[in-house]
Amino acid sequence: MSEFKLHCFAESGNAYKAALMLELSGLDWEPVFVDFFHGQTRQAGWRDEVNEQGEVPVLEHAGQTLTQSALILDYLAGYSGRFGPQSEEERREIWRWMLFDNHKFTSYYATLRFIYGLKHSGETPVTTFLRERAKAAYEIVDAHLAKRSFMLGERLTIADLSLAGYVFMPEDTGMDLAVYRHIEAWKDRIRDLPGWKSPYELMPGRSAQA
Amino acid sequence: MSEFKLHCFAESGNAYKAALMLELSGLDWEPVFVDFFHGQTRQAGWRDEVNEQGEVPVLEHAGQTLTQSALILDYLAGYSGRFGPQSEEERREIWRWMLFDNHKFTSYYATLRFIYGLKHSGETPVTTFLRERAKAAYEIVDAHLAKRSFMLGERLTIADLSLAGYVFMPEDTGMDLAVYRHIEAWKDRIRDLPGWKSPYELMPGRSAQA
Repeated sequence: MSEFKLHCFAESGNAYKAALMLELSGLDWEPVFVDFFHGQTRQAGWRDEVNEQGEVPVLEHAGQTLTQSALILDYLAGYSGRFGPQSEEERREIWRWMLFDNHKFTSYYATLRFIYGLKHSGETPVTTFLRERAKAAYEIVDAHLAKRSFMLGERLTIADLSLAGYVFMPEDTGMDLAVYRHIEAWKDRIRDLPGWKSPYELMPGRSAQA
Repeated sequence: MSEFKLHCFAESGNAYKAALMLELSGLDWEPVFVDFFHGQTRQAGWRDEVNEQGEVPVLEHAGQTLTQSALILDYLAGYSGRFGPQSEEERREIWRWMLFDNHKFTSYYATLRFIYGLKHSGETPVTTFLRERAKAAYEIVDAHLAKRSFMLGERLTIADLSLAGYVFMPEDTGMDLAVYRHIEAWKDRIRDLPGWKSPYELMPGRSAQA
C-alpha cells in the first residue's frame, strides 16, 4: 500500500495540484478514483465519510485526512521539505498567491473550462462573464511573471503548483492563451521540470473508467 | 497615527473580515478609504504601489504590507493571540474553511450581491448561475454549523470572521436566507459579541464620501 492516497479524477485541476506535487517530490502515492461525473461527490454518504465540502482532492496520510489543495500543498511541502517557503516572508507570499488562485485565477478559469470545455455549453452569458473574470486574473498573474521565472522568483514553489492546476488542461475555453506570454513561458518552465506529467497521465479519468 | 492602517471601503466584505478582526481584538487601527467605485483599484499606479492583485483589503503594519483577507486574519491572530488556532489540527481546520470561503462561500455570494444588490442588474443568466453556486456553498456551511456554535466548535476563530465577511451586508441578493437557519443562528451569535459592529459602521463607504 502506498504511503499517500489521493482521492481524485483526471479532469480535476485542483486534484492535479496535489498529484503533481506528490510526483515532483518523489513521494510514494496512489490515486483513488472519484466518479465525479456520476455524482459521487454530491452523495450524502461521500460527504459524511470523505469530505463534507463535497470536493476533491482529499489526501490520506498517516491516519489523517486533508482537504483543500492549498492546504495539501502546504502539508506536503512541510513533510518533504520541497517547494515550501524558506522564510516567514516567503510563507506569506506563497499563501497570498494561493489565496488569489483559489478566489480568482483557478476559480473563474476552471468553471469556464467545465461549462464550455467539458459540458460544451457553447457561448452563453455565463461563459462570457466567466471569461472576462478569468482574463482579469490571467492579466494579473501574467504581469507578475513578467518580472520573474516563478511566482516567488527563480525557484519553483507550491504557489506555482497551485496556479498551474488548470493551465495544462487541454480543453478549449475560448480564451486566446498566447497573449499571456509570460504565463506561457512559465508553463514551459514547469513542463521542463524533471518528472513533470500531465493531469491525464497522473490520474484516472472518465475515459479510463468507461 | 494608528498602529494599523487598513485600506478598505465599507461595501467590501473582504475588507470587513479584517476590520472586524481589528475591532474585536481591540487593536489600534484606522481605515484608509479606497475609492473602488471610481476605479481606484484598477489604476496602474495603485497596483504598482499598493496591491498588484488589484484588491482590498490591504493592511499596513510595522513597515509591512499584507494583502488577502485570510492571510491578514492569520497575521493578526498571531500578533494579538486572539481567535487563532490552539493546535496544528485547529490550524489546518481554520485554513480549510478559509480556503473554502475564498473559493466558494464568499466568492459566489459576494459577486451575486455586487451585480444584483449593488449594481441592480435585475435577474440575468449570470445572477441565476451565481445564486445556484452560492446556495450550494451555503448548504455546506449550514450543515457544518448544525453541529456546532462556531466553525471550529464552541469558540470564535478567524475561520468565522472570514466566512462572516458578507453575511452582514444588507443588500438583497434574491436569496431566502431564512432557510439557512444554522447560519442565521451563527450570525446572531457573532452579532452578540462584545464590540461587534456592522460593515458600514466600521469603514467609510460611498455614501460617506459623496
